[in-house]
Amino acid sequence: MYEPEMNTDLEELQEDECLQLLHQHHLGRIAVLVDGQPLIFPVNYGVSHRIVTFRTAHGTKLSYAPGSHVAFEIDEYAPSTRVGWSVLVQGLAVDATTALDDISWTARGATPHPVAPGVKIHRMAIRPTQITGRRFKLAADPG
Amino acid sequence: MYEPEMNTDLEELQEDECLQLLHQHHLGRIAVLVDGQPLIFPVNYGVSHRIVTFRTAHGTKLSYAPGSHVAFEIDEYAPSTRVGWSVLVQGLAVDATTALDDISWTARGATPHPVAPGVKIHRMAIRPTQITGRRFKLAADPG
Repeated sequence: MYEPEMNTDLEELQEDECLQLLHQHHLGRIAVLVDGQPLIFPVNYGVSHRIVTFRTAHGTKLSYAPGSHVAFEIDEYAPSTRVGWSVLVQGLAVDATTALDDISWTARGATPHPVAPGVKIHRMAIRPTQITGRRFKLAADPG
Repeated sequence: MYEPEMNTDLEELQEDECLQLLHQHHLGRIAVLVDGQPLIFPVNYGVSHRIVTFRTAHGTKLSYAPGSHVAFEIDEYAPSTRVGWSVLVQGLAVDATTALDDISWTARGATPHPVAPGVKIHRMAIRPTQITGRRFKLAADPG
């Protein structure tokens, strides 16, 4: 059960706002479970409809993620505006490299551009179960 | 088993470099497992010796993390220098709010300053099992 923190100053974002933020950014982090231990990796991602997708080489993400629950997150805090937000995608990872299901087709409609070096010929996608977000704006610094 | 990606252009960082990067930054992300589903939350953290610590309110992190495996990650990519890196702390979460063990004492030696609003009276710490990092530097853009 997801138990929200007791906090009236955090505004919950609607899914359409979350998707808008996902479309506007390129770098996020994926959490994958490996033998009971969560790991987090930064990834450059793309988004097509509600499907977050990224490219990957052979390795931990490809070995452990497909068919498993994963989390994907983006966030930002801008000191100039004092606005912070985060978006969290929960779902099942899908190896969308060549699969013919709807999620994989949709995923291949996005074009993530990995910045990190390496040959990343595989395509991963997330079949979302929940897309949530939070935002806060701090009052002006009294100092 | 952690299976590194086939990639000769990513430099593995030594633990002391990882700790130096952890000391130089303040915003990271924690991955917590809730009923088999990983979740990721941004947190402002502090670090004392090898112990990453952050403050939290009553909620998901406090309910699910203590005693469980968690991941903590920081990363950066600077387009100006074309250098990117990430640091990953794997370990067990500890509720260090009032506990008297070594990890909790060490954790309370750091002073994380949460930017997000809310009363965060609890202190969480990570007893690290592995601290790893990777860095890459891209060649100048041929374009």
